Amino acid sequence: MNKLKNSLREAMEAAGLRSGMTISFHHHLRNGDHVLNMVLDEAARMGIRDLTLQASSIFPVHAPLIGHIQSGVVTGLETCYLSGPVAEAISHGLLQKPVVFRSHGGRAAAIAEGRVHIDIAFIAAPSADPAGNLNGVSGPAACGSLGYAFADARYADTVVAVTDSLVPYPLSPVSIDETQIDYVAKVDCIGDPRGIVSGTTSVTRDPVALRIADYAARVMAASGLMREGFSFQTGAGGASLAVTEYLKPLMRERGVTADFGMGGITGAMVELLEKGFIRQLLDVQCFDLRAVASIRENPNHIEIPAIRYAAPIRRGSAVDRLSCLVSSGGIIGGSGGHSDTAAGAALTLIVAPLFRARLPIVVDRAGCISTPGSTVDALVTQRGIAVHPRRGDLREALLRARLPVYDIHDLQAMATRVTGVPDAPRHGDRIVGLVEYRDGSVIDRIYQQA
Amino acid sequence: MNKLKNSLREAMEAAGLRSGMTISFHHHLRNGDHVLNMVLDEAARMGIRDLTLQASSIFPVHAPLIGHIQSGVVTGLETCYLSGPVAEAISHGLLQKPVVFRSHGGRAAAIAEGRVHIDIAFIAAPSADPAGNLNGVSGPAACGSLGYAFADARYADTVVAVTDSLVPYPLSPVSIDETQIDYVAKVDCIGDPRGIVSGTTSVTRDPVALRIADYAARVMAASGLMREGFSFQTGAGGASLAVTEYLKPLMRERGVTADFGMGGITGAMVELLEKGFIRQLLDVQCFDLRAVASIRENPNHIEIPAIRYAAPIRRGSAVDRLSCLVSSGGIIGGSGGHSDTAAGAALTLIVAPLFRARLPIVVDRAGCISTPGSTVDALVTQRGIAVHPRRGDLREALLRARLPVYDIHDLQAMATRVTGVPDAPRHGDRIVGLVEYRDGSVIDRIYQQA
Repeated sequence: MNKLKNSLREAMEAAGLRSGMTISFHHHLRNGDHVLNMVLDEAARMGIRDLTLQASSIFPVHAPLIGHIQSGVVTGLETCYLSGPVAEAISHGLLQKPVVFRSHGGRAAAIAEGRVHIDIAFIAAPSADPAGNLNGVSGPAACGSLGYAFADARYADTVVAVTDSLVPYPLSPVSIDETQIDYVAKVDCIGDPRGIVSGTTSVTRDPVALRIADYAARVMAASGLMREGFSFQTGAGGASLAVTEYLKPLMRERGVTADFGMGGITGAMVELLEKGFIRQLLDVQCFDLRAVASIRENPNHIEIPAIRYAAPIRRGSAVDRLSCLVSSGGIIGGSGGHSDTAAGAALTLIVAPLFRARLPIVVDRAGCISTPGSTVDALVTQRGIAVHPRRGDLREALLRARLPVYDIHDLQAMATRVTGVPDAPRHGDRIVGLVEYRDGSVIDRIYQQA
Repeated sequence: MNKLKNSLREAMEAAGLRSGMTISFHHHLRNGDHVLNMVLDEAARMGIRDLTLQASSIFPVHAPLIGHIQSGVVTGLETCYLSGPVAEAISHGLLQKPVVFRSHGGRAAAIAEGRVHIDIAFIAAPSADPAGNLNGVSGPAACGSLGYAFADARYADTVVAVTDSLVPYPLSPVSIDETQIDYVAKVDCIGDPRGIVSGTTSVTRDPVALRIADYAARVMAASGLMREGFSFQTGAGGASLAVTEYLKPLMRERGVTADFGMGGITGAMVELLEKGFIRQLLDVQCFDLRAVASIRENPNHIEIPAIRYAAPIRRGSAVDRLSCLVSSGGIIGGSGGHSDTAAGAALTLIVAPLFRARLPIVVDRAGCISTPGSTVDALVTQRGIAVHPRRGDLREALLRARLPVYDIHDLQAMATRVTGVPDAPRHGDRIVGLVEYRDGSVIDRIYQQA
């Protein structure tokens, strides 16, 4: 048995790539990923058409996908996050079929339960051996956790590891093992790890965002959840990252340590681990190179598969054990893991400025719903905090802590006094995207831009 | 969701145990295991009958199983290894249905491919958290690798972790994660780790065995496989363990390091790792407490699931990458992983004295075939070495190295000159055991003792 192929083309032919197939990709190399583009370029040269991409995220670096859609090589796209030129083009009607958006946990569950079928998974492997054992922590394009790739490797009919760093058997540590890999394609370069750091992972210096972060940390403290052994997740957005700074003095004051921090992991979370504020990090993707170094070296920084992180499955996943989730409200490229963690966490906070670019953050109807309001506990802005009506207990606790609690309509009025009432957004009639909630139901539609 | 149950009974009821089911156990606590007995005692009290046990091995400690068979609680047994009073009783006809013997890799493949269905898997967990994340390396009954339990956890309908060491969420490191566990039963004691060490794991001082081991090491060297990056596995038998001692000077002389040692791991293999003779140990079960300490502390001592170790699956497993296998010929309790590793290894040696208890080791027809001769390359005895006829190249190499090569019939004649020709073994007509080869075919039958 020789799994090792000396070119991507050879591996794609061995894997039996044919027109009409569904092929999958993971996005841990983020905006530095070369593999998705390489595979599609090669597929185009092979004369393949009508592929559906099951890609965990699409970044600006994937702009060549536009050409492959125009030429009919790709006709379907299912993802958790879509940004950059591809997002822009699809908003304007590039793709005939609507893009299907899923959450990270919803995607893993859909694959595990067979609602999504993958013919061939391509796994960008920063390090691999000739039998297909692979990890993300070593090699020139080390990206850390490979959390989103596990479901693809386990359930796809055929699995191709694509690596630029081939090591002798047996590789160690192993993230995905040889029993799940059919072919190993040796290529020159799978990506540029500098592209892992996205704009969304730098801590803000904006005083409005810092005030919001301060409020959010105090809401967590006032909620009663900041106890010994609690846990939290902060997203990659600037304001939600800043929350980690404000948590430190509050945790120190109370003498509490968190059992775990989770999610996409940043240097800010690594610092909390290293300084003893958190006992463990459960890492489904690394958002910067400090996180990559940490997951390689710190045994308390642990890679977890997406299904363990966030999948809505019978046996539950880590989100169901999460105390506090803080994430930024704002237009990004998809839910990522947000709707999963919001559903699981005991306290879900959205942090956002009262208005952005003269548009109020509170509107009568969100432009696109990816996380249902019923799974959110409070909105934290620089002017005040609105608590979901079902959380009267939380509202009382915040008032006792003298935090500025408002009815959400009052926050909306404060904003519109400055911004005016915005025009209703205009859009065409054609549906370009379907938003699937983690349970598989469609909770919103995205229309072509006018 | 509350997976945690405060008694084994509660967990068994929650798991829906009913008469007629197949339940599974792993044997990493070996002769110190309490879990199999506890579950069957409780099942008996619940009035359950007609269970089939899918147990990776049965040891003397499991003697109470005899009573449960007599009373009809258990009516079927499938295993990889059967020793002690249960083996004795079954040889004499205790069980109506024949016992099905599989190799470790064959068992994992049969479970993965659905030929064996497990209703409820009971996983003895030396450490677990309330969500069911578990490992074998911490807690009072630490047994090290949980290699044989992975397939059970992944494919059983319902999975119960049984632990005496419950730690806060999230446990780390994790061998089997929360997404595979339905219930966690907290009990007082899952077993006595002193029972892990079996008689078969101590290095021999017998001069005959040492001479055999010396020959075996020299056969490995003469075969040409002892090159930089080679690999080997020695079983738990005394003579095959002694081989590791004789390998050291030969490896030092050649300046070679092995990429990996594999299998059930003993202190002797750990020493080779620690002294730099081997780069990594791939460990499917720990045969002694030194191995348990090593797998907990040494990042180059790695737990592998049985399916990665030895399963005959399309994508291959580690046995297919093995250079040399040395194992003892002799009556033990089943193939364990032997027929898997023999099929995979480039060089398979059987080490055995020319006769044991005045019975010759070479006979016209083996009493029970678990490993086909076509997968064995040579028999190494204290008087000489017989090479399989298909390995003329190996025979030439051994002659060039001035090793004492004989036709196997000459070895047989040497033995019978001392022992006389033994009587043909007598047995009854009733079949008490079926030996399934790793591909699922039945390669031998075991008859009731006369």
